[in-house]
Amino acid sequence: MTARRPSLAVVGATGAIGGVMLRILSQHADVWGEVRLVASPRSAGRKLVVRGEESEVLALSEDVFDGIDVALFLVPDEVSARWAPIATSKGAVVIDDSAAFRLDDDVPLVVPEINPHAARLRPRGIVASPNCTTLSLIVAVGALHAEFGLRELIVSSYQAVSSAGRDGVTALREQLSLVAGTELGTHPGDVRRALGDGAPTSTGPFSPFAAPVALNVVPWAGTDAGDGWSSEELAIREECRKVLGLPELRTSATCVYVPVVAAHSMSVHARFENEVAVDRAHEILATAPGVVLFDSPASGDFPTPSDVVGTDPTWVGRVRRSMDDSRALEMFICGDNLRKGAALNVAQIAESVAAEITSV
Amino acid sequence: MTARRPSLAVVGATGAIGGVMLRILSQHADVWGEVRLVASPRSAGRKLVVRGEESEVLALSEDVFDGIDVALFLVPDEVSARWAPIATSKGAVVIDDSAAFRLDDDVPLVVPEINPHAARLRPRGIVASPNCTTLSLIVAVGALHAEFGLRELIVSSYQAVSSAGRDGVTALREQLSLVAGTELGTHPGDVRRALGDGAPTSTGPFSPFAAPVALNVVPWAGTDAGDGWSSEELAIREECRKVLGLPELRTSATCVYVPVVAAHSMSVHARFENEVAVDRAHEILATAPGVVLFDSPASGDFPTPSDVVGTDPTWVGRVRRSMDDSRALEMFICGDNLRKGAALNVAQIAESVAAEITSV
Ligand SMILES: NC(=O)c1ccc[n+]([C@@H]2O[C@H](COP(=O)([O-])OP(=O)(O)OC[C@H]3O[C@@H](n4cnc5c(N)ncnc54)[C@H](OP(=O)(O)O)[C@@H]3O)[C@@H](O)[C@H]2O)c1
Ligand SMILES: NC(=O)c1ccc[n+]([C@@H]2O[C@H](COP(=O)([O-])OP(=O)(O)OC[C@H]3O[C@@H](n4cnc5c(N)ncnc54)[C@H](OP(=O)(O)O)[C@@H]3O)[C@@H](O)[C@H]2O)c1
Repeated sequence: MTARRPSLAVVGATGAIGGVMLRILSQHADVWGEVRLVASPRSAGRKLVVRGEESEVLALSEDVFDGIDVALFLVPDEVSARWAPIATSKGAVVIDDSAAFRLDDDVPLVVPEINPHAARLRPRGIVASPNCTTLSLIVAVGALHAEFGLRELIVSSYQAVSSAGRDGVTALREQLSLVAGTELGTHPGDVRRALGDGAPTSTGPFSPFAAPVALNVVPWAGTDAGDGWSSEELAIREECRKVLGLPELRTSATCVYVPVVAAHSMSVHARFENEVAVDRAHEILATAPGVVLFDSPASGDFPTPSDVVGTDPTWVGRVRRSMDDSRALEMFICGDNLRKGAALNVAQIAESVAAEITSV
Repeated sequence: MTARRPSLAVVGATGAIGGVMLRILSQHADVWGEVRLVASPRSAGRKLVVRGEESEVLALSEDVFDGIDVALFLVPDEVSARWAPIATSKGAVVIDDSAAFRLDDDVPLVVPEINPHAARLRPRGIVASPNCTTLSLIVAVGALHAEFGLRELIVSSYQAVSSAGRDGVTALREQLSLVAGTELGTHPGDVRRALGDGAPTSTGPFSPFAAPVALNVVPWAGTDAGDGWSSEELAIREECRKVLGLPELRTSATCVYVPVVAAHSMSVHARFENEVAVDRAHEILATAPGVVLFDSPASGDFPTPSDVVGTDPTWVGRVRRSMDDSRALEMFICGDNLRKGAALNVAQIAESVAAEITSV
């Protein structure tokens, strides 16, 4: 018996995540029947290649969901908030990569390596995929949690500019072309002068960042979430709690953009209920699905964004036990924010839904 | 009465720290009598400007310390280890910026804002200045400690390449000129291919870093200190304990190079003995000597390296109370590693010794 292959709509096919999704669909070519590419009216008529064939981009409308089994939403929050319910009302299962539904109690937040079954219970017909910062860390931390019992996370991120979408990448490239080959960076204000008018929020060419990002780091990601926190920092807290099923998990995050194109890094202090040994942590990480252990720093083996970009797994290195706390580990984690941090996780969830549909 | 001005030797005048020191000496022009510039035989005869006058660089030898009251050592560890005792044997007080003597029980480790009096008791005639990573953080943390009682520090650094000296800056500039204007950074291995042969430790043009640093971050600074720690991470631990006089202070650091020329940043989780309030922390930081409070993130006021480079103080922002622990604060701290992180702290110590000498 050959089951009917489910049909797929990719909403946001022209974006940063959309581009990576098209590559993943070409690599996993036998999962889907029809694949429909959708974006804003600005992109209608553009031709994109998927599974080796040119396909025309459709403008988002109610009609694009006709006959669609699964719809991937790779668009800004407000577009998901408005259009995902329309897609579900037409019978599609929505896998949403925006923040619109992540903390909705009736929407499961799914990382297939950790809580795959959660995707089956979806009262609103929507499954959400976490933020790229959460995803870059949770697969590794979740594997350790299963054995040691996670109690607290203190995380500092080194986030790639592509997590601010195409605009983030463009801003870094424009800024770099202005500063590379110059002597900028050693004198007061020279980077700011070259990249903007010196006001704290100005950055010369259009930029989604609150300060220059070339030759700089920017400790602010997202919007103001109150009490000094940024929205991205609270997202890590709430999403880790939801995915791991640990509503009391202690979490403090500091989110910082760095001049890296793709792949997020995280410096992580993780405290557990039980004593931890580095050898055992190594064993767990070496065999955990979706994780690569790369940890021999004296010989140069630690993960960096340039090792990890374009790869699927979460890479972990610099694992060591805190000197003052036998229950805590320090580690450095890297993951490609466009792959596992976004498109790949969405594709994994979508494929599990496809398997459900096909097996009915 | 006009006191005799003490004489000064600057050993390492041609280096990254040396260059900043010459600018500081020109700004504080009335402290010193004769100023003698010293470097390796490679630099002998070069002319450098200090206090508006050209001065010829002397090759390091015993004779350069004849008649010198204070000698600044801004040279690699092994050069300090060998030559500082020679300078003291000739009657000079040595202020050493290398790691050679920092943890020696008979050598005080001094940050003038925190333990100024320690500089007066120097059994070996040597005073040491901390590592730039320690210095970038300790002035702010020390001010909070005085009121709240510090118990634990969990620190992740975003370190500028100039903390690896001139070679670090050259490596970043060469690597940037290879990657800027390209599409590099989004595909597997392309940064590594452009900058080296793909082996983990190779980075194309000569580099002191263990991985490419342009469009990348490198979570390894210094040498292998055992159990997975780098020497720079243990330095933060031991030096904070020594300067603050807290031999039991719990400390975990993760040191990471970022593609920034100058100014170190630190994401800090600080746990105290007593409850902390952000308002009170703000008051303390706003009035602490050597600290600038820059903390209104929603309006773009948080410190970044590009704000801080070339300035003297330690800048603090993103101050917030941990959501799960009323005794802990999160904050983001930036300081210029070449100024307060090195040359300025050495100059401050040297000036306090000069004041001693002049007042005798
Ligand atoms: N970048 C990451 O690392 C990352 C990680 C996890 C989650 N996410 C989330 O994924 C979503 C997409 O992010 P991205 O980085 O790919 O953004 P992006 O590069 O800016 O792309 C945005 C996409 O949304 C489409 N779009 C915008 N407005 C639309 C509208 N009114 N109707 C239909 N389509 C519209 C755009 O189409 P046009 O080309 O026609 O404008 C484009 O395809 C966002 O919610 C983001 O928060 C991103
Ligand atoms: N960069 C930082 O952020 C930082 C912060 C705190 C502490 N430090 C410490 O400060 C010291 C200097 O660092 P740097 O960054 O300025 O290094 P650098 O740029 O590499 O300069 C090294 C200096 O040492 C001199 N030197 C080297 N070998 C010598 C020898 N055999 N005899 C005499 N002079 C010699 C060099 O003279 P030539 O020009 O003749 O070679 C040059 O002046 C190091 O111990 C470093 O760890 C650096």
